[in-house]
Amino acid sequence: MIIVIQCIDKVGIVAAISGVLAQQQLNIISMREHVDTQENRFYMRLQIEQHADESALERAMQAVLPQHAVISINPVPDKKIVVMVTKEYHCLADILIRNYFGTLGASVLAVIGNHATLQDICKRFDVPFFLVSHEQKSKPEFEHNMIDVIKQHQPDYIVLAKFMRILSPEFVAEFETKLINIHHSFLPAFVGANPYKQAFERGVKLIGATAHFVTNDLDEGPIIAQQIIPVNHSLNAADMMKAGKEIETSVLAKALRLVFEDRVFVYKNKTVVFE
Amino acid sequence: MIIVIQCIDKVGIVAAISGVLAQQQLNIISMREHVDTQENRFYMRLQIEQHADESALERAMQAVLPQHAVISINPVPDKKIVVMVTKEYHCLADILIRNYFGTLGASVLAVIGNHATLQDICKRFDVPFFLVSHEQKSKPEFEHNMIDVIKQHQPDYIVLAKFMRILSPEFVAEFETKLINIHHSFLPAFVGANPYKQAFERGVKLIGATAHFVTNDLDEGPIIAQQIIPVNHSLNAADMMKAGKEIETSVLAKALRLVFEDRVFVYKNKTVVFE
Amino acid sequence: MIIVIQCIDKVGIVAAISGVLAQQQLNIISMREHVDTQENRFYMRLQIEQHADESALERAMQAVLPQHAVISINPVPDKKIVVMVTKEYHCLADILIRNYFGTLGASVLAVIGNHATLQDICKRFDVPFFLVSHEQKSKPEFEHNMIDVIKQHQPDYIVLAKFMRILSPEFVAEFETKLINIHHSFLPAFVGANPYKQAFERGVKLIGATAHFVTNDLDEGPIIAQQIIPVNHSLNAADMMKAGKEIETSVLAKALRLVFEDRVFVYKNKTVVFE
Amino acid sequence: MIIVIQCIDKVGIVAAISGVLAQQQLNIISMREHVDTQENRFYMRLQIEQHADESALERAMQAVLPQHAVISINPVPDKKIVVMVTKEYHCLADILIRNYFGTLGASVLAVIGNHATLQDICKRFDVPFFLVSHEQKSKPEFEHNMIDVIKQHQPDYIVLAKFMRILSPEFVAEFETKLINIHHSFLPAFVGANPYKQAFERGVKLIGATAHFVTNDLDEGPIIAQQIIPVNHSLNAADMMKAGKEIETSVLAKALRLVFEDRVFVYKNKTVVFE
Repeated sequence: MIIVIQCIDKVGIVAAISGVLAQQQLNIISMREHVDTQENRFYMRLQIEQHADESALERAMQAVLPQHAVISINPVPDKKIVVMVTKEYHCLADILIRNYFGTLGASVLAVIGNHATLQDICKRFDVPFFLVSHEQKSKPEFEHNMIDVIKQHQPDYIVLAKFMRILSPEFVAEFETKLINIHHSFLPAFVGANPYKQAFERGVKLIGATAHFVTNDLDEGPIIAQQIIPVNHSLNAADMMKAGKEIETSVLAKALRLVFEDRVFVYKNKTVVFE
Repeated sequence: MIIVIQCIDKVGIVAAISGVLAQQQLNIISMREHVDTQENRFYMRLQIEQHADESALERAMQAVLPQHAVISINPVPDKKIVVMVTKEYHCLADILIRNYFGTLGASVLAVIGNHATLQDICKRFDVPFFLVSHEQKSKPEFEHNMIDVIKQHQPDYIVLAKFMRILSPEFVAEFETKLINIHHSFLPAFVGANPYKQAFERGVKLIGATAHFVTNDLDEGPIIAQQIIPVNHSLNAADMMKAGKEIETSVLAKALRLVFEDRVFVYKNKTVVFE
Repeated sequence: MIIVIQCIDKVGIVAAISGVLAQQQLNIISMREHVDTQENRFYMRLQIEQHADESALERAMQAVLPQHAVISINPVPDKKIVVMVTKEYHCLADILIRNYFGTLGASVLAVIGNHATLQDICKRFDVPFFLVSHEQKSKPEFEHNMIDVIKQHQPDYIVLAKFMRILSPEFVAEFETKLINIHHSFLPAFVGANPYKQAFERGVKLIGATAHFVTNDLDEGPIIAQQIIPVNHSLNAADMMKAGKEIETSVLAKALRLVFEDRVFVYKNKTVVFE
Repeated sequence: MIIVIQCIDKVGIVAAISGVLAQQQLNIISMREHVDTQENRFYMRLQIEQHADESALERAMQAVLPQHAVISINPVPDKKIVVMVTKEYHCLADILIRNYFGTLGASVLAVIGNHATLQDICKRFDVPFFLVSHEQKSKPEFEHNMIDVIKQHQPDYIVLAKFMRILSPEFVAEFETKLINIHHSFLPAFVGANPYKQAFERGVKLIGATAHFVTNDLDEGPIIAQQIIPVNHSLNAADMMKAGKEIETSVLAKALRLVFEDRVFVYKNKTVVFE
């Protein structure tokens, strides 16, 4: 059983939580805790050996925790996701493979592409692919088409696996805290378009990728995971893009695992991640 | 205030500990906990905002914890160490620098060298250097000379900063759990002498270094930290040794920081490290 | 055009090679060179801007190089491979995906499995899968069945993508210098079976994976690439295995790219790799 | 003997260079070469087994190379440097240690500090320390004082080892291509002041350091080396700064080694580095 808690910090909060568990003879296998003293905020992730009545346990917890505590007892272990893509295959393929072999920690309900490029790979894995072209449409119309598809599937998360169109604040607001993006740079370096070209021109010696939740500001949401690889003068912008795809795949996979295992807490524009 | 606890695991142990703290109105700033379910063993490191009467707190803790619990409340923040060296300077110099600028988390009481090579650098930092030559002496005699110097200083830890003589089980027994060594390979690869030559001959693509507590078996004690760097065909054994010194310095520095901050627990031949 | 050369070293060898190229008005875009002074051996990889008559160029090169020089001018850019697997999917799936999207640098002609587990994923990618069970067969018989399948496809390389049976010296001899294996540890640590269990029991802080050519000695062939990830006390042997799969996939992918791009030279038990 | 060459690229350039060497019976031990096809620029670093008359060799080289080729034959192996500091010790101490033990690849002629904080550590190593305060002086006056000290020592390079005042374009112009700086972030992220505070507020999961040549634009010169370390929610800005110092030290040490070994070429705003 997994329990995740986020609330205002106060003296005795760990005692209160663990008291409730001890009372119910529940054994803590692993406990991760963080207090953000600047924000006066408390975060906890508990793994419990036994199972217990969830609603009774939640009531008991709420009774001892500060007001507005966010408690999730045994959050759904197999999340449901919709994936949005454009033409690049690497992140989507990795997700489809893990989904197929049951190691993703989530089920892919559908893939939305604004190009047909990745339709065939989805078909090979029997995953529904929805082609929602942005062509000859207004942006609101385009986004409404996608929103329709997403709502129809009611996913826990929407994964932007190299979806290359900028989403409007309206779209983002619709799915707040549910949108996970992979950005092809080491944020906050090289925000925006063509980060590999920017990296090449700047002559950097490392390139990176960043998985983050999406908020209104472009490439500005809470960061979940980042990773880098060394590069040198022998790589041109295209080589960097190729090398970068490897870490994009790997950092998105890591971020999704962390989120799906309920190891990521969001508060304001930052995350607490219990790796 | 720092509290570290190691004991047998049982249901309610976190509640018991945090109950004692809550009762005394002590606020937990950070808590790291690990249960080794295979060994049924519980480890905890707590950082508390306030100060409290230590012996009263320890009594209260002992009263609620399982028998034979090892509790350390506010372990001495500035450890005392003796460093043992041979001829290579890199680890010792790093320790002396941090010691001089007050960022080591420990005080260097003395340096013992079986060669005079590093005497001058110690003198420049006003750190006592004891030359204990192994020449024209039996091993027991040599070790007794060193034991005398060490005992005279009563250090919390003895750091083998590239001390290149093998120590007898008797010596090790004398300072059990206090001896920290840097081994110049990624253990358990390349145990014993000349690991860089071994690594070169095997044609490995990474070389490493390992900081560990010393037990009777050569290079076999509990590992505290390990690190690697990439190498390739262009490096010969001497180049690898040179490159390796950088990570030896860095991994020993990391291990010492972790130990001095009371983040390392030892049980049997393994460590729990709350980084 | 790619040119790779391996031969005995002598004074003037670079002048000789580049003289031939200059004479034919061929421009060197990139040149990597290594002299192993201990073995008196010369290695070179050249990328040439223009195309040229390959056999004429090879004759001109042979005329100026030491005897027994191994020259390969414009080695086949799209290698052909056979993949051997058991039950674990991660390395195979990565290869199949890259093969499908044309980014592997090689074509997968066939997959041989000693279990049927991975038959379906091959079918989804229209890659022929040959089930060669080891059950109720002598080892020679089992291996002859596999050799038959392999020979029928005439691959440039045979990739052991988590093939979990030990191959006989006879099998290895049949395909010398063509067999590439992924070993699930940081060789030479944890040779043999169950490296993650060994790593867990030793309490290491890093685990690794090694891609290497296969020779007669178990896990002893020339190393192509190695990689590690940090681990800690919170991972048990099963967690380490799970974490390890990620680097197994990644290090095999890297090794294959290097081999397929003709960046890897083998001499005795070591490799020269021009990354 | 080391030879470094930078010039316009043309067909036959490698043949020309190696022809000259072969003619003089000089054996190439290692050769690194790079052609920047976009800029049509050629870079080479050669290590030669034998010694030869340098001026004769240079004349022979100039005769076969394109106009304006920059050739350096056997560049001074022990560079001379002046180090500029403010209050932080970590980079300076590392340089002083390597200088003292003869492994820096350069000699520290003098240290200039705008505070007296690091005077004592220099004295302990018998390295002249010049206190040039910026207080109660105009910026031009302050810089002229420093320029005087520097010119008096005629260093090959000036290392800004955590020198925390911004230098004017005039100062930079005075020592063009000789100024090496360590910036405490992963450029181009977090340009300017307080990068650790910026990194903390952005909630990044990696922090970095960048060693670069200094040009007129703040933090905008050619990058020599970069490195990162993982961070997480448990570190505040001060912790990040502390952790960052470790990589600042390490990345500056690496960059200096590369520069002092004549492995770094600068062209426009980028470097070619033969590691």
